[in-house]
Amino acid sequence: MVNGELPVYKVYEDNEVLAFLDRTPINPGHTLVIPKKHSETILDTDDETLERLIIVTKKISNAIYKGLNIEGFNIVSNQFRVAGQVVPHLHIHIMPRYKDDGVRLWPGREYESEDEKKEVLKKIRKLLK
Amino acid sequence: MVNGELPVYKVYEDNEVLAFLDRTPINPGHTLVIPKKHSETILDTDDETLERLIIVTKKISNAIYKGLNIEGFNIVSNQFRVAGQVVPHLHIHIMPRYKDDGVRLWPGREYESEDEKKEVLKKIRKLLK
Repeated sequence: MVNGELPVYKVYEDNEVLAFLDRTPINPGHTLVIPKKHSETILDTDDETLERLIIVTKKISNAIYKGLNIEGFNIVSNQFRVAGQVVPHLHIHIMPRYKDDGVRLWPGREYESEDEKKEVLKKIRKLLK
Repeated sequence: MVNGELPVYKVYEDNEVLAFLDRTPINPGHTLVIPKKHSETILDTDDETLERLIIVTKKISNAIYKGLNIEGFNIVSNQFRVAGQVVPHLHIHIMPRYKDDGVRLWPGREYESEDEKKEVLKKIRKLLK
């Protein structure tokens, strides 16, 4: 509570990673997992940090899944403001889910044509060669 | 198209990982990244596979971000049916996002009390000791 900061409900901490309850959960137990080393998004995060982050995310997911006796969960990480990232420090949401909890994560649609698909694919694949 | 299967628009492939366009994208370029080795969710995926998956997800994210000239993206992985996982094989969505694209990923809410928070925290933390 120093300097007027809100209390953090810490879920887990080690030398590289910190996890705490999200203040506005999709469902109770909604947890944020963050690397202690600063990066803004996945794009500027070094491989070692990312690897550690995903392994700890599995560990915490398991504790949430079993500890809260839930049936499933979503793992989400928003990259950049336009995608809903409010704090410019990489974080992963682990979000407990329940049957008929009314959450619909995103609206899907169909591609307008095979050509649209091919065009998009070309733009991505040229950067993966 | 063998056996009536739908064509796969492959984004990337290596020995461990395959990535292809989602057929019902949130926005064009929406890509699925999957490990070739079978697991159902993150919980039964071995560490080595998970590490490889997240590194390739970064690589493909970079190609989507730059190739499609987008402003941001979401990384999402649904665990178990109740969370929206339709195919029981671990997969990661990379979802391009645009300003004012109308997508709202999830509704947040407040905890009803500090006690509710503490109770939830206790259940999770006891499995992380």
